[in-house]
Amino acid sequence: MNKKFALAIHGGAGTITRANMSEEKEIAYRAVLELSLKEGHKILNEGGSSLDAVERAVIILEDSDLFNAGKGSVFNSDGNHELEASIMCGETLKAGAVGGAASIKNPIAVSRKIMNSEYVYLTGKGADEYAEEHGFEQVPNSYFYSDFRFEQWKAAQGSEKMKLDHSVDKKFGTVGAVAVDQAGHLAAATSTGGLVNKKYGRLGDSSVIGAGVYANDTTCAISCTGYGEFFLRGVVAHDISCLMEYKGLSLEEAAQIVINEKQIKLGGEGGIIGVDGLGNVSLVFNSEGMYRGSINQEGNAEVAIYS
Amino acid sequence: MNKKFALAIHGGAGTITRANMSEEKEIAYRAVLELSLKEGHKILNEGGSSLDAVERAVIILEDSDLFNAGKGSVFNSDGNHELEASIMCGETLKAGAVGGAASIKNPIAVSRKIMNSEYVYLTGKGADEYAEEHGFEQVPNSYFYSDFRFEQWKAAQGSEKMKLDHSVDKKFGTVGAVAVDQAGHLAAATSTGGLVNKKYGRLGDSSVIGAGVYANDTTCAISCTGYGEFFLRGVVAHDISCLMEYKGLSLEEAAQIVINEKQIKLGGEGGIIGVDGLGNVSLVFNSEGMYRGSINQEGNAEVAIYS
Repeated sequence: MNKKFALAIHGGAGTITRANMSEEKEIAYRAVLELSLKEGHKILNEGGSSLDAVERAVIILEDSDLFNAGKGSVFNSDGNHELEASIMCGETLKAGAVGGAASIKNPIAVSRKIMNSEYVYLTGKGADEYAEEHGFEQVPNSYFYSDFRFEQWKAAQGSEKMKLDHSVDKKFGTVGAVAVDQAGHLAAATSTGGLVNKKYGRLGDSSVIGAGVYANDTTCAISCTGYGEFFLRGVVAHDISCLMEYKGLSLEEAAQIVINEKQIKLGGEGGIIGVDGLGNVSLVFNSEGMYRGSINQEGNAEVAIYS
Repeated sequence: MNKKFALAIHGGAGTITRANMSEEKEIAYRAVLELSLKEGHKILNEGGSSLDAVERAVIILEDSDLFNAGKGSVFNSDGNHELEASIMCGETLKAGAVGGAASIKNPIAVSRKIMNSEYVYLTGKGADEYAEEHGFEQVPNSYFYSDFRFEQWKAAQGSEKMKLDHSVDKKFGTVGAVAVDQAGHLAAATSTGGLVNKKYGRLGDSSVIGAGVYANDTTCAISCTGYGEFFLRGVVAHDISCLMEYKGLSLEEAAQIVINEKQIKLGGEGGIIGVDGLGNVSLVFNSEGMYRGSINQEGNAEVAIYS
């Protein structure tokens, strides 16, 4: 016990600039990010596990309608919502994930349950059924409705009906958290509503172990936010871990190579948050902004939005 | 052009022993594996791409009812069939995958189409819709029926109704192919019906880029077969590639570490087939057997089943 603990979170990356942000909106975003950090910190400070901390931090973000995850999830092409989430334990390399869920209030909590089962990855109606059978809160699809997301969807439909949306509102809404606890164990969690107007049961990287999430006590815990197709092809979270494990790079060096060299070469936009076993935090992105924050052992929280 | 080309295939790993194999069955398995190798070799020999070769080799295996992929896919807990497949191009790092598909005759062909679209990973009914809209052959779920699979499912239901099947018939049915072509480009493809009696929309590693499939011209092309949950947690295919890229190991060294050290430590059973840019082939498994084969430039095919 009593190793240096730390927590970092993100609320999505993309074209986030001061020019298209009102003061009220910025205050609201910062308040939720700070609450998420403080709730996670409380758990770590009391000697709780990094898994408990990242799950709690992500639930705060899922329950806010500001971020594209949980309550604030975007519309798919059918006018519905399909949620993805994943969680991984660095000590045991256990992992759990849901994809294409439609009636789960907190996908990250269900992912945690799956992590402790014989399964890793449950999808579609089956994921909803699993959640219901195991007592998790079910919500009607209307729970995810907001005027803002509806208007965003209508705009996406009008411009590029059959395409993934990334031009209408170039913002890769995802939330995530990574932490190292007093016992030195790492954990990572990611949750998203995916891309606006997505169709064909499209999954991105957020529910894919190795791509949008990865944790390993010997290296790091990583949560990603970005254009899912490119992050899948880059196996981003695991790649950062491998650069540390096999090449001896630091977390920051590895993250810089993967996000600012390899992803840019591939055409991928987005970022990552990461923490290593010593409590070092990296917040790396190649987009204009990323909702992000971190908090150290002393409880000093830092929240930022622009680059 | 005219680099050394090679192709390797697998038809699943697990408890496959001479004791539980009849002579007729063994002859039938060998015949399909040899046909798959020869069809793939023909493409490579004529200067075709490794992508064409692995797709063709896998289609032969999907169309046989002997292997748990395509036509021979196992039953899920509802008495239906849900197919997974993935393909990756080592030159471009493009990838395509389907998960939870129910009416696609050849999931690997649809994965190839997705690879060349804006998507990477399509699932459930959406994957079926995508296939139909793009002109791929649709089949009723009864296409996948066979007495053998039905009896296997009934046995699984009787013994452990709610569990993933891996004890009734400890055989991780999956098919896959990897190849390097005359231009030195690598490709990998994997396809499966998943685990017998699976439920909750369970996905394994076969449709997950980095886990059940990976290809990168700078290292190797890998297709996996094994207990999906453990292969997902190990990010197996990408891990082999990273050990080569970042630690300078050979394909065989990297595959041995991942399958015979890391997977065994994690509790995972199964194997991989791999090829590198020089045409070296590795067929590595920690189970009792693996349906497998390889063919070199000269057309010498080798097929094996037991360890």
